[in-house]
Amino acid sequence: MVRELAQIDVDPGTADTFEAAVGKVVALFDAAEGCTGVRLHRSVEVPNRYWLIVQWSTIGHHTEFRNTPAFEDWRALVGEFFVSSPVVEHLDQVALGF
Amino acid sequence: MVRELAQIDVDPGTADTFEAAVGKVVALFDAAEGCTGVRLHRSVEVPNRYWLIVQWSTIGHHTEFRNTPAFEDWRALVGEFFVSSPVVEHLDQVALGF
Repeated sequence: MVRELAQIDVDPGTADTFEAAVGKVVALFDAAEGCTGVRLHRSVEVPNRYWLIVQWSTIGHHTEFRNTPAFEDWRALVGEFFVSSPVVEHLDQVALGF
Repeated sequence: MVRELAQIDVDPGTADTFEAAVGKVVALFDAAEGCTGVRLHRSVEVPNRYWLIVQWSTIGHHTEFRNTPAFEDWRALVGEFFVSSPVVEHLDQVALGF
């Protein structure tokens, strides 16, 4: 399992609308092959910054998702809120605490 | 509940030693008031970058932790690996997927 960590900065003032839009498209991830979970977080210190964490079985599943109509739907619904391209990294978990 | 997200860049070549050091200090978080979980992740794209995610009951608990001897112990054990000060934000979860 790998996590996609995406830093998403949205237009200040559009946070509520962005969150509502994400709520509408969660099903796209649910239906994606190899996607096992998604969470959206909002930064306390930078209120127009979001951190999306998506769990994928493999990085390949995420790569394949980017070539599907579902990804186009995702970008069509939420892309307008982005002030810059999301910064994306993939993370391997290396230690589990308590 | 709030999550602390810390981007930690370590000296290239010291990753294994850093991970072992973190393993030794997980108990510091376990014992900290208001800390309910900790996970360490390693970036796939930037192999000397780690993302530490710590769950706190409130931001105040994290602030208080920074004033304890346990925080000094944490920094004493792992700080030598940092190539720069960790970049820390606190995150509120705004949407839960599946």
